[in-house]
Amino acid sequence: MRFTSLTSSDGVTEQFFTLDDVPGVLWTPQAAGPSPLILLGHGGGQHKTAPGVVARARRYAAAGFAVVAIDAPNHGDRPKDEEFGRIAAGLRGGGDPGALVAAMHAHLAGQAVAEWRAVLTAVRRLDEVGDGPAGYCGLSMGCGLGIPLIAAEPRIGAAVLGLLGADGLAGEAAQVKVPVRFLLQWDDRLVPRERGLALFDALGTSDKTLHANPGGHGDVPAFEVDDEARFFARHLARSRANGSSAKR
Amino acid sequence: MRFTSLTSSDGVTEQFFTLDDVPGVLWTPQAAGPSPLILLGHGGGQHKTAPGVVARARRYAAAGFAVVAIDAPNHGDRPKDEEFGRIAAGLRGGGDPGALVAAMHAHLAGQAVAEWRAVLTAVRRLDEVGDGPAGYCGLSMGCGLGIPLIAAEPRIGAAVLGLLGADGLAGEAAQVKVPVRFLLQWDDRLVPRERGLALFDALGTSDKTLHANPGGHGDVPAFEVDDEARFFARHLARSRANGSSAKR
Repeated sequence: MRFTSLTSSDGVTEQFFTLDDVPGVLWTPQAAGPSPLILLGHGGGQHKTAPGVVARARRYAAAGFAVVAIDAPNHGDRPKDEEFGRIAAGLRGGGDPGALVAAMHAHLAGQAVAEWRAVLTAVRRLDEVGDGPAGYCGLSMGCGLGIPLIAAEPRIGAAVLGLLGADGLAGEAAQVKVPVRFLLQWDDRLVPRERGLALFDALGTSDKTLHANPGGHGDVPAFEVDDEARFFARHLARSRANGSSAKR
Repeated sequence: MRFTSLTSSDGVTEQFFTLDDVPGVLWTPQAAGPSPLILLGHGGGQHKTAPGVVARARRYAAAGFAVVAIDAPNHGDRPKDEEFGRIAAGLRGGGDPGALVAAMHAHLAGQAVAEWRAVLTAVRRLDEVGDGPAGYCGLSMGCGLGIPLIAAEPRIGAAVLGLLGADGLAGEAAQVKVPVRFLLQWDDRLVPRERGLALFDALGTSDKTLHANPGGHGDVPAFEVDDEARFFARHLARSRANGSSAKR
């Protein structure tokens, strides 16, 4: 793990890094002990410092969490492969979006899960990151890559997911056994309402809450982000190191 | 309005009263100025001091709200009429529950709405109750009687509703224009999931959030009640009198 830059503002330290070929960012609360960790997965076509990712990261860090985001395969600063280009062209060409989005996530998931697990191992070695259960937050593609990650990764203890339908995911969703907050946008033109409800239904955990709000795919209200920080605080509290309870 | 008893415990004062023929209870935070008001409607077959009502009232009062609950017509300490008995017998006899519940609420709503409006007027005259917008919280029958109340009553500024289907309510639900938190239980045997989703969909406000949790009709998680207090605090803040911001 190689850190390439460090800046601090508003009580939050932001460090860019690479781990093998994967570029990432780590946000940590300044002047805190080891903080519980949240992994932040971006949406399709976005990257590790997309505005919505940075806004969540800074909000979580202000609430006392260490937060890490990486560029997903074929996204951000990373090269694109042929198969990715083929599926992306299909999406632009107006094919069945549910099936094409599922094919895209299936194409990326194997590599993405392995990369997240390596990042998790590396980041937990840092002094500023606690070694208790981590949180995962990912919507849309971040949900599509997050569900296989959570199904495979016992070090994740709670997740915020959503903005995605059940296509291709029901099997792995059933293996999700940690507390989940699931976001659904009631007027989402990219994700039919009943497909989103079906993915919530398919989650294997009995500790799950659906939050649905009016508006389109990108219109998740700001108050939900505040509430996510409380959700993670409730479920990751046991990972807080000594003295860190004063961090909120 | 005639008060008949007063007790205080854990920082909350509880006063029983009658207004004309309607028996009620008022909970207020001790040693506070005028507090924003929440009306609390109980479920079918319950009454103003059912355990779930009292638990919510004390939680809200601890968060700085004045809270009032009354016995609905035909409930609690009040006499039962013939039509009520006829519909209740139909429900016990296994008729179509959606239609019978809607008939029950329609039978009670006219009287219940008039009574709530009179209580609202009387309670707002008290020194310990603020005169800003009030909140309304009612689930199941409390939702069925609350929606016509909110549609008719401009002094209500935010509401927690849910645990009910759209049967017979779509028209009045469309007239609800205040912020709404809507609770749905994912495995509710009394309210089919799609009927509950249809009532959320029918609400006329664009500021509404659905919270769905696994479990049956009576299994709303305790963390939702905490979250309701925050929801009301966010939306009724303007009704707080001077100095009351320290009340939470």
